[in-house]
Parts: sequence; structure tokens; C-alpha cells
Amino acid sequence: MGSVWKSRLGLSIFGQSHGVAIGMTLDGIPAGIQIDMDALAVFLARRAPGNHYWASTRKEEDTPEFISGLVDGRTCGAPITVIIRNKNANSAEYKEFASIPRPSHADFAAFMKYGEFWDSAGGGHFSGRLSAALCIAGGICLQILERNGIFIRAHISSIGSVHDLLFDKVNVDKETLLKLSEMDFPVFYPEVAERMKLEIERAKEEGDSIGGSIGCIALGVPPGLGEPMFDGMENRISRLVFAIPAVKGIEFGAGFEAASMRGSVHNDPFYWDLSQEEAKIKTRTNHHGGILGGITSGMPLTFRVVIKPTPSITREQESVYFERKEQVILKIKGRHDHCIVPRAVPCIEAVAAIAIYDALI
Amino acid sequence: MGSVWKSRLGLSIFGQSHGVAIGMTLDGIPAGIQIDMDALAVFLARRAPGNHYWASTRKEEDTPEFISGLVDGRTCGAPITVIIRNKNANSAEYKEFASIPRPSHADFAAFMKYGEFWDSAGGGHFSGRLSAALCIAGGICLQILERNGIFIRAHISSIGSVHDLLFDKVNVDKETLLKLSEMDFPVFYPEVAERMKLEIERAKEEGDSIGGSIGCIALGVPPGLGEPMFDGMENRISRLVFAIPAVKGIEFGAGFEAASMRGSVHNDPFYWDLSQEEAKIKTRTNHHGGILGGITSGMPLTFRVVIKPTPSITREQESVYFERKEQVILKIKGRHDHCIVPRAVPCIEAVAAIAIYDALI
Amino acid sequence: MGSVWKSRLGLSIFGQSHGVAIGMTLDGIPAGIQIDMDALAVFLARRAPGNHYWASTRKEEDTPEFISGLVDGRTCGAPITVIIRNKNANSAEYKEFASIPRPSHADFAAFMKYGEFWDSAGGGHFSGRLSAALCIAGGICLQILERNGIFIRAHISSIGSVHDLLFDKVNVDKETLLKLSEMDFPVFYPEVAERMKLEIERAKEEGDSIGGSIGCIALGVPPGLGEPMFDGMENRISRLVFAIPAVKGIEFGAGFEAASMRGSVHNDPFYWDLSQEEAKIKTRTNHHGGILGGITSGMPLTFRVVIKPTPSITREQESVYFERKEQVILKIKGRHDHCIVPRAVPCIEAVAAIAIYDALI
Amino acid sequence: MGSVWKSRLGLSIFGQSHGVAIGMTLDGIPAGIQIDMDALAVFLARRAPGNHYWASTRKEEDTPEFISGLVDGRTCGAPITVIIRNKNANSAEYKEFASIPRPSHADFAAFMKYGEFWDSAGGGHFSGRLSAALCIAGGICLQILERNGIFIRAHISSIGSVHDLLFDKVNVDKETLLKLSEMDFPVFYPEVAERMKLEIERAKEEGDSIGGSIGCIALGVPPGLGEPMFDGMENRISRLVFAIPAVKGIEFGAGFEAASMRGSVHNDPFYWDLSQEEAKIKTRTNHHGGILGGITSGMPLTFRVVIKPTPSITREQESVYFERKEQVILKIKGRHDHCIVPRAVPCIEAVAAIAIYDALI
Repeated sequence: MGSVWKSRLGLSIFGQSHGVAIGMTLDGIPAGIQIDMDALAVFLARRAPGNHYWASTRKEEDTPEFISGLVDGRTCGAPITVIIRNKNANSAEYKEFASIPRPSHADFAAFMKYGEFWDSAGGGHFSGRLSAALCIAGGICLQILERNGIFIRAHISSIGSVHDLLFDKVNVDKETLLKLSEMDFPVFYPEVAERMKLEIERAKEEGDSIGGSIGCIALGVPPGLGEPMFDGMENRISRLVFAIPAVKGIEFGAGFEAASMRGSVHNDPFYWDLSQEEAKIKTRTNHHGGILGGITSGMPLTFRVVIKPTPSITREQESVYFERKEQVILKIKGRHDHCIVPRAVPCIEAVAAIAIYDALI
Repeated sequence: MGSVWKSRLGLSIFGQSHGVAIGMTLDGIPAGIQIDMDALAVFLARRAPGNHYWASTRKEEDTPEFISGLVDGRTCGAPITVIIRNKNANSAEYKEFASIPRPSHADFAAFMKYGEFWDSAGGGHFSGRLSAALCIAGGICLQILERNGIFIRAHISSIGSVHDLLFDKVNVDKETLLKLSEMDFPVFYPEVAERMKLEIERAKEEGDSIGGSIGCIALGVPPGLGEPMFDGMENRISRLVFAIPAVKGIEFGAGFEAASMRGSVHNDPFYWDLSQEEAKIKTRTNHHGGILGGITSGMPLTFRVVIKPTPSITREQESVYFERKEQVILKIKGRHDHCIVPRAVPCIEAVAAIAIYDALI
Repeated sequence: MGSVWKSRLGLSIFGQSHGVAIGMTLDGIPAGIQIDMDALAVFLARRAPGNHYWASTRKEEDTPEFISGLVDGRTCGAPITVIIRNKNANSAEYKEFASIPRPSHADFAAFMKYGEFWDSAGGGHFSGRLSAALCIAGGICLQILERNGIFIRAHISSIGSVHDLLFDKVNVDKETLLKLSEMDFPVFYPEVAERMKLEIERAKEEGDSIGGSIGCIALGVPPGLGEPMFDGMENRISRLVFAIPAVKGIEFGAGFEAASMRGSVHNDPFYWDLSQEEAKIKTRTNHHGGILGGITSGMPLTFRVVIKPTPSITREQESVYFERKEQVILKIKGRHDHCIVPRAVPCIEAVAAIAIYDALI
Repeated sequence: MGSVWKSRLGLSIFGQSHGVAIGMTLDGIPAGIQIDMDALAVFLARRAPGNHYWASTRKEEDTPEFISGLVDGRTCGAPITVIIRNKNANSAEYKEFASIPRPSHADFAAFMKYGEFWDSAGGGHFSGRLSAALCIAGGICLQILERNGIFIRAHISSIGSVHDLLFDKVNVDKETLLKLSEMDFPVFYPEVAERMKLEIERAKEEGDSIGGSIGCIALGVPPGLGEPMFDGMENRISRLVFAIPAVKGIEFGAGFEAASMRGSVHNDPFYWDLSQEEAKIKTRTNHHGGILGGITSGMPLTFRVVIKPTPSITREQESVYFERKEQVILKIKGRHDHCIVPRAVPCIEAVAAIAIYDALI
């Protein structure tokens, strides 16, 4: 029952890569909210393959069909269900993976769990394609949050050895943040984009793939969200973020850097910001990433995730037969992303939006 | 309701640092299991303060009292509740933090959430002391897992700039692993321990604190645990691990290193291990940390967390009054840990045990 | 988020009566289970309208479309999603109920909760039509339970003042039980069926509707299912059963009769049944309905629910305008069930199956 | 994990009848709420044994000890944990029930679930004594609800064949309702009390026990509480109410009477009540018990539960040995309630309060 999540919102993700359809049900969205379908399409397009040279040339034509929850484009309080029909699938390409697990894919673990019955075609329910369903849920939450003054954007923090420069976690302004989603390669310092693309290009030429990391910032999150212990914002966001295939780590604020920091440096001093009409307590630095004791502080909420290199590479790899005690040399064909990082950016925004909106309701 | 967690097990953590008692209720443990009280006491002692020169000299005398769930030392199927009475508390020391938030403590966020009513004494429900309750729950799970051939141990991965050397994530053997819990400074390469202690000593001398990181390894975890999407092992462990104050990040397997890796390097090749009586599919490397698609692979499950430097430092710090729009220079007195990392080691083992046992039931 | 349920299984029900489709996602069903589509169709047909003279003449043509979770008719471990497209809807008929609540329908409460935005057409998400989705989930669980020797059937216990005779709660045999689902009017004593139909006929002639009750029996349920307190079998079944519109009460075993019973009569004496190969402890009577302390005893699990008379009657009724402080005389047109009881029978079996299978996993 | 409940509130019930203590943790109560300890003591006294001639003469001296969640008598936002030490237990009396199940007690089911390890002394975790913990949680919720204009009281609806007269479900006034909790035998029509007591007296004289039923009314519940499907108010209340031992059925509004009603009678006509300052839509009758489609209508919320006769009777009963295939004649000694109904009244109020407050937050 891991594909059903119930908190204040309810979310169910369903479908397999090469099945009839994928989709999601999102329950708990208040009635009367206009869904901006164009904005949602733009958001989903950022995740779609085929739009970028570094991504798979498969064309998904992901047209989401709303089958419940809306009346005349507005939410009616009933659960929102959206499906995306699968087209253009070529299961034959994947047939052999039913008997030979692809290294670092979910194939092996799925076989150990479900046996021969698991739907291996295209990775089945474990496919990255399922993140489109997550993006629909997140895209809806993002719209609602923005109307409430909360803005969430993510940037490519690194690809291979190329890093986006550090942004100002204290004073990142809204305009700079919103620009990120207009770029096909969202970075704070545009000059690194070319070098990042070069990293991907090189991996591609060598029949290889490359990993990276994504940073996410939420502005306007009010203080006081989250509960102590198991339902803090770190608990909530991290639980959801690992629903995205390829995420293998998450850090909040200074994150792993804090391991080598002194308290005198890491501690964020408080001050009264009297510059605005409403005086507010802020911190001069933001190593806490907007979360203290699991609860939001009102400072920008920041986290970073690592995206492992796409396991589908065209080089020969060592694997085994499930059913026979034999080794095999595997060569994966087909069109695959050489780097999934750019397409994962909206997915990260999506889960952040779901987690924050769920805590806010 | 964030201090109540319900999965297959149910866990409730309660108490405030300077209240009457702290404690926990753990529900779902099968009947008939003998609790080894000595082993539990040894486990809890590893977290206790006052045992080490680098830690707080406060003496907690944490004697856990079992008030339900046992008959003659055996579980009876009913929820297990254990409380630890608070002694030796000096609330006066903390009184001023009710009106002045300590930088990077939960004080500020708690005040924003609960207002003046929150129990600020000793950090209240946000105190690191609450992790003793987590360790009781985890200590019980650890015992049961060990009887089922699953062994979990953590080591100090780094303190400040000093790192434990990398261990072999593929072939780490049980004996080496078990030795960790016998050390008061658990590292794989004993020679780094002295240098780590020096880091702490230096921070102490300068009225400062220092962060670090902890690596955790679980051996013997069967393949197939965890569910796709929201209940994968990464989702489960990370949700629980952020219940430990000071944890600000988690990574599985290669973790953030994967960001700069190529797929051809990161992918873990499969092979048939025919050396044992029962042939098994294993991976030659273990960058996946024993988890693929959220589901265990049977390889050692490994993750690493970052522990931020203790926010309580004796240096002067900038802060504010909650109630008056004024700045203040804060000087925290009292006995505090200069580095919480060594005491956090069993806490990490505890949450890993809870997460794994919960998935196993 | 009330339409998402998460226990060991996960279940999400979606759709509105006159929307694009209704449907459900059921997560947690093991891989490799063959779904008998014919048996499922037969089960769903028992709930479908238009099959019986006493029911609505609307023809629903409910063809369930499986859009995920199956490979070649077998479950693959991924969530099972099934949708039923809505056809033949005439929203105009319902338009006025957007401004005038129908007595004893959900209209009023829905308006109070969601405001003008709720989907009032055909009762929206509150429509009895949604119980078709519940029956799909339950129908799947029923099949799996039957393969494991657990048989669940319900009978019409009463319609108006006509009662089915009491059945033997101790020795009800499987053959008698299974026959129930072959009847279009499932009763233990066929002679009462005609008199029940007469009750419906009379209500129909008078532009009225009539209530009733349904008894449910589960045979073969092993002892030991359910947990104390909040997750006992009574808690679980009752929570699910109220998801069926029109259910207003539930009783287990002797139920409300127990209110006037003495302990010496109500207590069920234990005895060793040595007549079978495997000796078993049984009870001579079964006033406990197969559940003691929330946990199954191994005796037949029995419960009974009350179904209120369908609120849609063609007689004039007093109501109000939501938006104007005025009274109105309402006359509901359209084709409606005069008695929903016969069609509710499979719904009751469905929720019993979901609850029992969920506890069994 | 059935003794842990997590909704918007979190509730954990722990303890065994003859263990060290029983208690509860209630999480999610806002900070700053003053707990009226005297009112709580009065509420708990209504459930306590030994206060009434018809009840057990055991003296429980249930002094609740708050061990977390309060600062100076006010909630601080942290989980509230209260324990009641067990005294005066005589386990020897119960020893034989470890090997011989008492008819209609949980003994048998508990043995089937937990084996010989279950704590049979005094019924262990299944004891009615645990309902004291439920009453502490409910008593706290009741206080908060009353400060918000929501009043919940229950009356003895019947004992044996003696029924309290029907009350007016539409116009029951607050004063009449509040008087109920001042009576040691709460009924609307005081003249029936004596006859009810006589029923108990007769059962007692004959070494027997007697069942009954309890009606519950909540006034001031705002419209719009509850969610469709699985989280409607009927689902929520019924799930909680079966946590009380001896409850075997529940009905809302007209309940089982609705089975023999016509729609024209059962439907509750709407009207505009213009008599108050704020005009409100009300219903002329209240067969729906204040709940339509699972959601509150603003009318009095009413439900009724059946309480089975106490299984502990002093007459000889037929039972078996668990471990030997032999019959035995059992004679239960000790002091027991001959009728649990009066003491169950506050328990019913408690669960209603928990369910309603949880939906209201």
C-alpha cells in the first residue's frame, strides 16, 4: 500500500509505464479552486521527455485527463483523479529485463518482492514515468500555494563536477526565483549551464549517463508549520521526496556541510527586521534552511537532493539470469536520458509543494 | 499529533526535558518475546550523557521503568510503555530562553507554533533528551532483529574535518560491525578516534561546538522489504531519522557522491554468488546502499546522516526578545555537549531498527 | 481526504455521479493473483440498477475498465485502478437540487461543507453510484478470500415490517450461504421474499420508499484477526460500512438484542469440538458474532446493518432555498429506487471482504 | 498496533488491568488550554467502580498522574500523558483464566492471538479498566468542546426490558442535557430509574448480569464536520466506540427503526428557522441524527449503542481447558459489575468527544 499516502491530503499514484494509463488521485483539496490548466500544462512540460536534446527522444504526449473532482474547471471538494493514457510503448524492447535485471534499476528488487508476476515492461510501476503523476498532484498544490504567497522553485545545483554557484539563502528574491522555471536549464548563474550541458554531452558520447543534484527553495512559508518528532517538515518532505526514482539523499539548509562546521558559525543569529511594515524576527544566516525542531521558522525553506546517474546506459554491463545461475553481458538498447536531472527539477518542486500544502491546510 | 507514529508498529513519544518524565509506548510487538534488560541498559548507556569527557557532565541516571506490555520480562502483546523520571533538573537555568530564543534551537519555532505556552525548560519536548525514548523503542527492535539475523550498527563517519576511513560496503563482516558498539568512540579505523577527540577538545576550549556525521550499516536484511513510492525503505528510514534533533540530512549508499558519478561507475553489476550453500544474486559494488526502487536488495543497507554542531555554545550570541522589538546578547550557561555525535550513534541505530523491523513484520 | 483509506491495504474511491467516470484504486494486493473477470462482473451485476423491477430503470452499463495493476489478467503488485465511465446522465434533472436540498440526502451537508462549488448533479461524490467502486475493491478481495476458504455472503434481513427468519449463527453451512448470491432477492427463507417484494410494491405505488436491513455472515475466518482497542474487527468493519450511503447502524452477533439479555443467556459456552480431524474450541451459541475483544474467535462472523429508506421519493416534500430565506415544496422527478436494500447486499459483502482481507494480510 | 490511533489527534492507550499502570497519551491538543482537574476528576468518578451499589465493590482509587504535556496546569503543545497506577489487584483470583477461557470474555480470542504469553490477569489489556484511560482523553476533549459551545451527554436508554422514554431529538435543550451528568443513574425520565435498578437487583440476586443501551446526544456541533466515504462522522464515531469493551452495536438517528420506515416518514423536512438572530436551515424531525452523507448538519448529533451483559457472572458456566481437550465447569468468583451500563455512560461521552473534537480541529 506504499503508493497510497494519507496525511491531511490523500494521494494515490497508480499505473505502470507500459500499461493502459498512469495517474493519480488527490483528495482533500478544498472546493471552489480554479485549476489553471495552461499553467499545469506548462509545469508538466518541464518534466516531459523529448523536449531537450539531452533527454530521451521518446515523445510522451502526456495529455492529462481529469476524470473526477472538477466542475467547470473548479474543484468541487471530491477527490481529483487525473489519468494519462500510455501511447507509443514498445514492450518488446523491455522483454529481456523480465529475466535479466538491469544494474541499479528496480528490476531486481521488484522481482524479489513480486516474483515473476511483476510488470517489468518499461520498469512498470517503478518507472520514472510515474513521476508525471506526482507532478500533477504537485502542480495543483503549487498553484494554490502561489495564490497564498508561497513560491517554490528548484534549480540544478550540480551535474557531474559542475556546480551552480551558491545562492543567497537569506535574501533570495522572488523575481530571481521565479525566473528559474522559465529556463530549460534552470540555474542561478546562467554561465554554468553550458558547462553542465557539456558534461551531459560527454556522457552521451561515451554511452554513459551522469548524476547531479537539485536545490529547492520555498519562499513565503509561514512560521509554525510541521509538528515535532515524526511529522516535522524534514520528515514530511523527505518521506515524499524518496518517491521520486533516482533520489538517494536529501539535506536541509547547510546539510552535510554542517558536519564540518563549528556551532559559532552554523548557529543563525536572530534579529528584529524592522524594515517592513510588520516587524519580524529573522536570522542573519540560514544554515537551518527555514526549519528548526522540524517546524518552519519563516525563513526561506531550502533543501537539496542528489539524483543518481540514470542506470540505463548503452555500455555493456554485467548481470545475471534470475532463473538460471548464469552470468550475462547486458546491452540496453532504446532511447534513454543521459541525465535525468533537468527533468527531475519540477518533480522536486512538486513534492515540496505537496508536503508544504499538506502541512498548511 | 507528530509525536505519534502509526505504521505496522505504533510508536508514541512523550515528555518534556524538565517535566515529570519522558517515555514511549511501542505497540505491535508480538507476544512472547523476552526483553534482555541488561542489553537494553548497555544500549541506553551509549546514549547517556556524563559517561564521556566530551559530553555534558550532567548525570541523567536514566532508569527506564516498564509500566506496561511485559509479564515476567516477556512481551504479552499489549503495548509496551516505558517511562524515565526526570531528576536533577534546574529549570531556573533555562528560564530566560522562554523570552529569548537560542540561535538554532527549536525555541523560536516552538514559540511561533505554541506561543508563550510552550514548555521552554530544557527545550521541552524538543530536547535531545527525548531521543532516550526513541532509543528504548529502537533497542527493543534491535534485540528482536538480532535474534533474526539482522545486525545494525553505526559508526562516527566524521567529526569536523576528521573522517573515518571508508569501509567496504560490500563485504563488511559481522564481527567488525559488532565491535563498533563496544567502543566509546565507534570508528572503523581506531587511529582516527584520537584526532576526532582532538577536534572536540579544541571546540570545547574555544567555547564552541562541532558537527559531524554518522554512518549506519544493516547486515542480514532480507530482500523485498519496503513498498514502492511513499513507503520505500528510504522514505521510511528518513521519515524516522529526522525525529532525532540535530539531524539535517541523510543519504543512502553512494549518496551525494552519486551526483558526480557516471552511470557506468555508479551502477552495481550483478553476479551469482555460488560460494555459499544457497546461491544468491549479489552486486559487486554497493552504491545503491542495499535499496533499489525503495525495496531492499539483500545487500548491506547503508546510509549516512549529518549531525549539526550543538547549538548550545558558551560564546556570546546575537538574539532578540520575543516580546520586545529589541536585540540582546545571549550567553548560554550550564553544562552542554560540545559534540553530540558520539551520543547520537545509538539513536541512529535505533531508528534504523524501528524502520526495518516495522517493514519486516 | 476521507475518500482515501490506508490500512494494510490502501483504497481510494473517486468520481461523481454525473462526472466523467467513477473508480477506485486498490493497493496492497499481492502479485500473481488471477482476477476472475466473469465472477467480478456477476458480482457487480448484483448491485447494478435496472436489473430488477423494484429498482431504478436507469441502465448503468457499468463496464469496469482496468487501467493499472494487471498483466495478462494477473495482479503484478502495483496498485489496481479501475474506472467506470459515466453514460446516460441527465444533469438537467438535478439542477434544482443545487439550490434546494433534498430531504435526507447529502445535499445539505455537502453545501454546508463545500458551498456552492459542490457537484450536486446526481448527488456528486455522495451518490450511491460510488458504491460500485467499493464493490470492485470488495469483489477482488472476495475472490482472494474464497480461494483461502473464507466465504462471505449477505441476505436481506428485513424490508419494512417483513423479516427473513433467523438463521443458525452457529451452524450455518457453506452451501446454504453460497446460494444466497444466486438469488435476485437473497433470503434464507424464500417464502418471505414475496412478502418483501410486496412491501416495496406498495411503497412504489404510493410514491414512497421503504427501508430494511441486511445481515452478513463470514465463514472460515481464522481466529486471531483484529487488534485490541481501535483496530478490532468491529472497529474496522464499522468504519468501512458507513462508507455505503444509507447505512445508519450496525450490530455484531446478538447486537441490540443483547441489551435485554441476561449474561447467563448471552454468554456463549465453550466446548471442544472433536468431530473433525483437527479438534477445535467452539462456542455452543454465537451471540458474540465471531468477535471477542475485537478479535475473531473462529466462529461465523456475523453482523447486521440498517439501510434507511431511499430519500428520493416522488411525493411532495418540504424544503428550502439555500440562498433565499424561503420555503419551497419540492417534487423529485426521475427514476429512483423505491428500496435500495437488495442492491446494497453485495456492497455489504464488499466492505466485509475488504475489512477481513485487510486484517488477514 | 491497534491501541494507537492517529487522525488529526493521536491517541495511544496502554496498560493491563493488573500490571504496573494503565494510561494514555493524547497528542495534538493545542497549547495554552487550562485543564480543569476538578471537572476531570468528577467525570472520571462517574466511570469509577465502587461508587454504586449495583457495581463492583472494588475500590479503584484511580488517581490520574499527568506526566507530560502540562505546564502549570495548561497544555504546552507536547503530548499529554497520564498514568493511573494499579493497586489492590489480586491476580491469584484470575490465575485459572489463563488456562480456562471465561465465556464471552476476550480471554479466548487473546489466547488465539498471543498464545500463552498474553496477560490474562484481570483481562489484561482487554479489561474494562482500560476505558478509564479512554475517559481521560475524552474528558479533556469534552472540556475543550464545552468552551466552544459543544455539549455532549449520554443517558441510559435501556437496561434489560426497561427503557428510558424517547427524548425530543430535535429540541432537546441544553439544561435538560447537562442535568444528565449530575445523576448517578442518568435518564431523561427519572421514574424509570428505579425500575432499571430493579432489573439490575434481580440479575444480581440470581448471580447473573444484564445488558442495556446508551443514547448519546451532542448539541452545538457545527455543520460541515466529517468527510465523505471513510471519514464521515459515523465512520469516525463507530470506529472509536468499539474500543469500549462490551459495545456490540451502534445506530445513528432513527437507526434500526429506519428499517421499517417509509421514506415519507423518515425524511427530515427542511425549514428556515428565523426565530434566532442568525437565520438557520433546520430539519423538522431528526431521523438523520445530525449526520447526512457522513457530514454534520448542525442538528443534534444522536447515536445509541448496545452494551452486552457483563460476561462475569457467578453462575456455573461451561468452558474448556486450552491445553487439554477437556470440558470444565467454571465458577467465576470475585466482585463484578452486574450491569456495566451506568459506568459505560461517561465512556460513550468520551469517545464521542474525541471523535467530534478530532473532526473539528
